[in-house]
Amino acid sequence: MLILMTQGASREQIDQVCRRIREAGLTPHEIPGSIRTAIGITGNRGPISAELFTKLPGVSECMPVSKPYKLVSREVKPESTIIDVRGAKVGGDSPVLMAGPCSVETRDQTLKTAEAVVAGGAKFFRGGAFKPRTSPYAFRGLKQEGLKILEEVKRTFDLRIVTEVMDIETMDAVAEVADVLQIGARNMQNFSLLEAAGRQRKPVLLKRGMSATIQELFMAAEYLLSLDNYAVMLCERGIRTFETMTRNTFDLSAVVMMKHYSHLPVIADPSHGVGIDWAVPPLAKAALVAGADGVIIEVHPDPDRALSDGQQSLNFEEFAALAADLKDLADWRASRAK
Amino acid sequence: MLILMTQGASREQIDQVCRRIREAGLTPHEIPGSIRTAIGITGNRGPISAELFTKLPGVSECMPVSKPYKLVSREVKPESTIIDVRGAKVGGDSPVLMAGPCSVETRDQTLKTAEAVVAGGAKFFRGGAFKPRTSPYAFRGLKQEGLKILEEVKRTFDLRIVTEVMDIETMDAVAEVADVLQIGARNMQNFSLLEAAGRQRKPVLLKRGMSATIQELFMAAEYLLSLDNYAVMLCERGIRTFETMTRNTFDLSAVVMMKHYSHLPVIADPSHGVGIDWAVPPLAKAALVAGADGVIIEVHPDPDRALSDGQQSLNFEEFAALAADLKDLADWRASRAK
Amino acid sequence: MLILMTQGASREQIDQVCRRIREAGLTPHEIPGSIRTAIGITGNRGPISAELFTKLPGVSECMPVSKPYKLVSREVKPESTIIDVRGAKVGGDSPVLMAGPCSVETRDQTLKTAEAVVAGGAKFFRGGAFKPRTSPYAFRGLKQEGLKILEEVKRTFDLRIVTEVMDIETMDAVAEVADVLQIGARNMQNFSLLEAAGRQRKPVLLKRGMSATIQELFMAAEYLLSLDNYAVMLCERGIRTFETMTRNTFDLSAVVMMKHYSHLPVIADPSHGVGIDWAVPPLAKAALVAGADGVIIEVHPDPDRALSDGQQSLNFEEFAALAADLKDLADWRASRAK
Amino acid sequence: MLILMTQGASREQIDQVCRRIREAGLTPHEIPGSIRTAIGITGNRGPISAELFTKLPGVSECMPVSKPYKLVSREVKPESTIIDVRGAKVGGDSPVLMAGPCSVETRDQTLKTAEAVVAGGAKFFRGGAFKPRTSPYAFRGLKQEGLKILEEVKRTFDLRIVTEVMDIETMDAVAEVADVLQIGARNMQNFSLLEAAGRQRKPVLLKRGMSATIQELFMAAEYLLSLDNYAVMLCERGIRTFETMTRNTFDLSAVVMMKHYSHLPVIADPSHGVGIDWAVPPLAKAALVAGADGVIIEVHPDPDRALSDGQQSLNFEEFAALAADLKDLADWRASRAK
Repeated sequence: MLILMTQGASREQIDQVCRRIREAGLTPHEIPGSIRTAIGITGNRGPISAELFTKLPGVSECMPVSKPYKLVSREVKPESTIIDVRGAKVGGDSPVLMAGPCSVETRDQTLKTAEAVVAGGAKFFRGGAFKPRTSPYAFRGLKQEGLKILEEVKRTFDLRIVTEVMDIETMDAVAEVADVLQIGARNMQNFSLLEAAGRQRKPVLLKRGMSATIQELFMAAEYLLSLDNYAVMLCERGIRTFETMTRNTFDLSAVVMMKHYSHLPVIADPSHGVGIDWAVPPLAKAALVAGADGVIIEVHPDPDRALSDGQQSLNFEEFAALAADLKDLADWRASRAK
Repeated sequence: MLILMTQGASREQIDQVCRRIREAGLTPHEIPGSIRTAIGITGNRGPISAELFTKLPGVSECMPVSKPYKLVSREVKPESTIIDVRGAKVGGDSPVLMAGPCSVETRDQTLKTAEAVVAGGAKFFRGGAFKPRTSPYAFRGLKQEGLKILEEVKRTFDLRIVTEVMDIETMDAVAEVADVLQIGARNMQNFSLLEAAGRQRKPVLLKRGMSATIQELFMAAEYLLSLDNYAVMLCERGIRTFETMTRNTFDLSAVVMMKHYSHLPVIADPSHGVGIDWAVPPLAKAALVAGADGVIIEVHPDPDRALSDGQQSLNFEEFAALAADLKDLADWRASRAK
Repeated sequence: MLILMTQGASREQIDQVCRRIREAGLTPHEIPGSIRTAIGITGNRGPISAELFTKLPGVSECMPVSKPYKLVSREVKPESTIIDVRGAKVGGDSPVLMAGPCSVETRDQTLKTAEAVVAGGAKFFRGGAFKPRTSPYAFRGLKQEGLKILEEVKRTFDLRIVTEVMDIETMDAVAEVADVLQIGARNMQNFSLLEAAGRQRKPVLLKRGMSATIQELFMAAEYLLSLDNYAVMLCERGIRTFETMTRNTFDLSAVVMMKHYSHLPVIADPSHGVGIDWAVPPLAKAALVAGADGVIIEVHPDPDRALSDGQQSLNFEEFAALAADLKDLADWRASRAK
Repeated sequence: MLILMTQGASREQIDQVCRRIREAGLTPHEIPGSIRTAIGITGNRGPISAELFTKLPGVSECMPVSKPYKLVSREVKPESTIIDVRGAKVGGDSPVLMAGPCSVETRDQTLKTAEAVVAGGAKFFRGGAFKPRTSPYAFRGLKQEGLKILEEVKRTFDLRIVTEVMDIETMDAVAEVADVLQIGARNMQNFSLLEAAGRQRKPVLLKRGMSATIQELFMAAEYLLSLDNYAVMLCERGIRTFETMTRNTFDLSAVVMMKHYSHLPVIADPSHGVGIDWAVPPLAKAALVAGADGVIIEVHPDPDRALSDGQQSLNFEEFAALAADLKDLADWRASRAK
């Protein structure tokens, strides 16, 4: 159920509706809108009677919501969400570029990469300090030391930090440095972590699980929104299929679906999506043309010696060429939107 | 094993090498190249001794081929294959547009669609006369009558006909009308049909099976090439995964892989790939930017009343808008290739 | 729509109903039942009015059928179909054992294997003369010569021959030798072949496609039944998933589903299902306990030297041990059914 | 690398080898064996020189280990691991039965079910107090209150408690009641949680992720073993595929693979595997025959009113019938093992 307020509805009227919702044992969610306020209702098991609300002052309409996800849906909030990350806007007309190494390995490797990333016009720097790894014997990141290096990147360059948080224990430490908290594919249904991130007042980049349906990704995002963290970016990073020639199957249709059914910004990650360096640029460009709000790209000064994901990382030259193409296509896209 | 001839090798020298190959109980395949001729060898179970050939006049080099597919591979023929279909070139610098209804339903519907398709700049008309259907009770095409309507399209417009052939019994009848024989996803590993198509002297559009790996598609194409039909276009049309929001998962990475490992032209079919009309245009544009040699699009005068695949067909207006965008992007692509 | 006749309905009454169905432009299908006759109706696009039939003499009831498959369904024919193959019954209380080599390679290999197969208590001999192969360069069977060897097996032993038919061209030749025509996984949606097999008066073993849903398998079988060939055995042979440790994922749940929703006999093929010799016996036994009407097992005198599928074939000793276990479990199953 | 000690090797000799391993910057893992001790080495990036160890007193042999998982592997520990859970042995000759409701809903529902479960011969009671749910709006368990009810089950019946732990925050509270800590499919690659469970001295039931390969499950278990918690049971609970007729695809081949390549006990969960009540008994029986060390079954006094997973829960009568069959088959299995 979604309650739409009239355009001029007062603070008091909104509060009265929320009180009435709580009295019915349910939870109200005020949904930011540029024209008028909507109030989502969750917590019900069956249908809710609209009669409880239609006659309250300031209420314009009561709409049933047909999907299992609610706050994430364009049914509830038709206009696209724009997330402001220290002045860089995600979800608006201009797509954003996020780039950086898979792992923060050394201060030198990280700062050099940051320089190349800035040169390519990126406003976001990605890099993992805490790394989830399939094998307990693999390199699992520099951890606290890695965060310090990211801190330095943040101070030195006009870059916003995107970095993964793996558990509640380290969330505060990560959140001190991160501008965007990344929740990795393997943790997409770690509901305890989602709740903790929902309580943070930080933007979150939520990666689609390797075999999560789009609807499950929406439901995972719903955990965050239902705790009033609306600054969520959805990220397509490839799904697991029978195909073995690519690391994953980059599901570009999913980008189109997410943009259609949800108001949240969508970021495409072709580096993990395909897992092969020379295949990243064509897919990154394709994602932009298909409507993604941004792409996230792995870059490394010397991919052959990377401690993780070297086979899918671009070197600086390849990244610069891709960045130029992406700018071209973003311009084309903007010209058509007019 | 692949034998590269010297640049000026004579007809006679080439013939001598082929004779020697046949004497060893193997099969030679002359591979067209703009600079020099190569000769592929198939039929061996183990490795072949290069010594048999290196000293023959006109032989430049003998190379082992490491992949299970041979003639399909860029190892054997590095330059891209260009297929000339009555003057329209597939596989060169300019991507082609193929469009038309899923099924030929009536003369009127078909001719009207042909007109819209020509107006959008397409040189190829798709439309099924024989339709493979999951249910024996569904509409299975107009068959012979459908071929006649396609014949009329061919006579009336500057359009080349792409239509499906389902079995050997009807192949001759279909080949009389078709400029390009389509082999459908469900028949990708119908090896008897592949062999019959390999013996035709007609271009073939070979669709990837719903759960075929890229390598299996290459092997299916290899059936055709090994019978000396080199005019094969590979077609990505979506694969089957766990995702249910889209009809299939359109595997754009596969387009990139196919272009990289094979010299054959690659056509993208986003209509079947995603199965939802409004998602076709963004994916068609993405496919072009990712390097496809063409796209194939379902168009219908009145999609809601189509006898098959209506939910994924564009109406004429939507098609015209898409065609204009595709032209833009083709121009951009061409400008960069220079 | 399904029309149930009363118990004592006469031939004439049945014929009258069928005439009435044809007059309405639809197709009647008499469905064999031990107690009373049912008549299925196909060919309709929308619902059929029951009133057309309820008042005809001998008609007991008119039932709508809710599934897209009809004749295959237990809704239409609740009792299990038993197929009599020269005295061996498939689908009844006792499960059957089918065994033999992947390919007929030589007379000696085939006859020796037949002997071992008989010793294990099998009544069916499997073996391919025409082999569908992913690569055009692989061994594709002895073809006509292979059929001759199978003919000899048939004459010499109390064994019924199960062998694959790949196309319409060779169907008559194969049908002369085969007691059961096998349609392979890659041809499950080769609808032209299904129709040709539907017109044969021979039992068919229809293998589930590598990525076919159970419902699609039912629809493929429906092609056969709708042409009045009711002697169809469904075969689970493993599906394609992301898992790579096994050749396929043997979907035992599918066996349970097929037995539940369809009256047709179900055969399990753990050899292809898992693709690893030592894993075949536990899965064969599991299939029996889960309710399969039989299992089909690959056996070879010397698996390491087999021309195809050696890695999943049992040697004679392994087969004998498995056959003994299967007998035990069949007895246990029978004792419980009482 | 694995070091096998001689049969009579002394404590001191073992310690010396461990010291030498640590001096090389690596980690030793003593592996319990009934005859002689083995010492696994982890932490190396490349191969280790055997020469460092072969001449130390008490060392019998140094073996390279070829798989990415080590401690989990039968290469390292050929004999099956038996886990003693308060007197009930998992992994030995007799399979175990685990049963109970999906969620602990009320004291009454839980105690009644426990009674039925004991009557069926089960030694383990399953039931969730903390429930991971796709939707934030679904019932997420009674939490602390649920643990109290499980505590009462533990005191009242001869039952060991298997219950899920979702995060580090609640692990201690759960571990106080649980005899076996369950890590759910969605958390299989929640590496922080795995590490915390590895440091517990409690048996763990580790469920295979919905789209985890068998090797990834082994690697997840390796996290636990590498922290010296060897009491790990692997659990097959169905994987995600394209098939939609069943909730998941129950991968029985995986049970066979796990038993072959790992020494850890394997539990089959057909309730989640197939997700349909009437299909659970045949698959449970099949799992036993295929070699599972136990099955875990969802049981509810009134499945239609269950707050979660009702459609796949057995009622008491169905459970009793299944338990009797399982006993029969366990006896048959034991008789053959002799």
